[in-house]
Amino acid sequence: MRGEFDLIARYFAPLAGDAPGSFGLQDDAAVFEPPAGRVVVATLDTLVAGVHFLPQDEAGLVARKLLRVNLSDLAAMGARAEAYLLSLSLTRDAPEAWVADFAEGLAADQREFGCRLLGGDTTATPGPTSLSLTLLGSARAEHVLSRGGAQAGDLLYVSGTIGDAALGLKVLRGEIGDLKEADAAFLAERYRLPRPRADLGMRLAEEALATAAIDISDGLVADLGHICETSGLAASVEISSLPLSQPTRAALGQDPSLLQDVVAGGDDYELLFTATPGTAERLEAVARELGCPVRRIGQMSEGSGMVMHDESGKPVEIGRAGWTHF
Amino acid sequence: MRGEFDLIARYFAPLAGDAPGSFGLQDDAAVFEPPAGRVVVATLDTLVAGVHFLPQDEAGLVARKLLRVNLSDLAAMGARAEAYLLSLSLTRDAPEAWVADFAEGLAADQREFGCRLLGGDTTATPGPTSLSLTLLGSARAEHVLSRGGAQAGDLLYVSGTIGDAALGLKVLRGEIGDLKEADAAFLAERYRLPRPRADLGMRLAEEALATAAIDISDGLVADLGHICETSGLAASVEISSLPLSQPTRAALGQDPSLLQDVVAGGDDYELLFTATPGTAERLEAVARELGCPVRRIGQMSEGSGMVMHDESGKPVEIGRAGWTHF
Repeated sequence: MRGEFDLIARYFAPLAGDAPGSFGLQDDAAVFEPPAGRVVVATLDTLVAGVHFLPQDEAGLVARKLLRVNLSDLAAMGARAEAYLLSLSLTRDAPEAWVADFAEGLAADQREFGCRLLGGDTTATPGPTSLSLTLLGSARAEHVLSRGGAQAGDLLYVSGTIGDAALGLKVLRGEIGDLKEADAAFLAERYRLPRPRADLGMRLAEEALATAAIDISDGLVADLGHICETSGLAASVEISSLPLSQPTRAALGQDPSLLQDVVAGGDDYELLFTATPGTAERLEAVARELGCPVRRIGQMSEGSGMVMHDESGKPVEIGRAGWTHF
Repeated sequence: MRGEFDLIARYFAPLAGDAPGSFGLQDDAAVFEPPAGRVVVATLDTLVAGVHFLPQDEAGLVARKLLRVNLSDLAAMGARAEAYLLSLSLTRDAPEAWVADFAEGLAADQREFGCRLLGGDTTATPGPTSLSLTLLGSARAEHVLSRGGAQAGDLLYVSGTIGDAALGLKVLRGEIGDLKEADAAFLAERYRLPRPRADLGMRLAEEALATAAIDISDGLVADLGHICETSGLAASVEISSLPLSQPTRAALGQDPSLLQDVVAGGDDYELLFTATPGTAERLEAVARELGCPVRRIGQMSEGSGMVMHDESGKPVEIGRAGWTHF
């Protein structure tokens, strides 16, 4: 492989372009000026080979996942992505083609989501490939969404469908058989490439349509728990209202016990948010305009903790609390 | 070890304090507003166990080194440190005491350098401990220093002493014997704990005393090469003018071939900067005021590349070009 400075010049400097603040990735630090009237919203996520992605995964997909999990965090704050810093820890035997594919994946998603590379660090590691990305976004201070703003009586919404990625990981591990090929491929793709709800998050924030928001990365159960805890409220979710894709329904039809993975499995990168009943009509109209489905799945109330129930109101026990690293 | 959310609440939330933008480290992203009239200056450095620090190094020292290498980058831009995001990739068998010591080291340096934790990510890794820190600083846009501003005729300066850290690493590896214990300890300490020149960098920038600056992390030869390349100039350095500590002089007295490590070894985290002859008096006065020694070691001229020469003007060959990862 080329030396690190050559790698940077060849593959990464083009991702910075000629924006002055990046100094062509040749300086000690980068300059970032948020657009007038906006504050910086910053997030950092790390992906480790063998933990967050499979070592054999295509480098371009890994790059896009790395950027997208951060984009999803900004979406949950209602912020617009602007620029990012990248830390690459590569093994010495990493093929240069891996780096080329990785940079190509970033280039594709930069175009799609409108952000650019600003700086970073490239190091060697004897261990697994490790990738860390700090994404800088911007928002008007008064529009930033947090997990803590929900009020008793607020409706609880989720975007897209949940559970696909958790089942996709099981498909990739060979733990779910007997699915149609197209269904298995759909689920695997949902695991490999999150679709951050960038536009929805910004509109919810700018039009004050959500009172609290989080992106579902640890699983619906755990992430709703975070909203409950931070807002000091309880939540109830009606299981039958959960938005499920057709392939997830097919998998559940064969093995109903997969419901636990659907609600607690993580990696959905959908937005989970609360809204006052008065804004429901408007937010549903905005979601339709964006082509981003949203579904009301429950409600916030005084108290603490969350309960899932069936259509008759009978509580449904969910064993696992969601993904944690330790 | 505790779960990751417990670790964050117990050891890291106190580092964020009650600053509103960090949301108690409980949200998807953090909000950072640069002080009025200032732009954001951002840098990112990663340390991997076995590559950038020794696995047996004390966790508090590792934490401070992680923060300080980033502080040194901001110093080279003339920016003031404000807040940081932290990525911790820990092995599952990491003792909780390691995390506690690590957080204590950060707390000490936050106080010393005036910045605070804003957010981050904690993950498990099967590989070596890997630490990544994104430091956000601020500066007036017109004061930001870069590597590319040197002019022919500018004087070349360096802060502190160079080579100590490179020899310190050799001491720790048992590759230099016969040093007095105090000298060996001094050199090892210089490797373990950089002293970023935060105040000097800010004053050079704010008073327009430097035309270009870089912090010496890859070694004097390599980092001066970066200034030459980015500024489109040549540099000449007089070897006898290099500022050396007494322990480094003692080591060189025993083995003159160590000069190569001194000039090319890296990890100095001193500032290397250029200044027009007209500001020399003022900048030397500022350095005295700050108690930060600076030494004139050479000059910039038309052309490219760098040459080191002895007092008679005879070129001195330096074989190695400095530290690179690949």
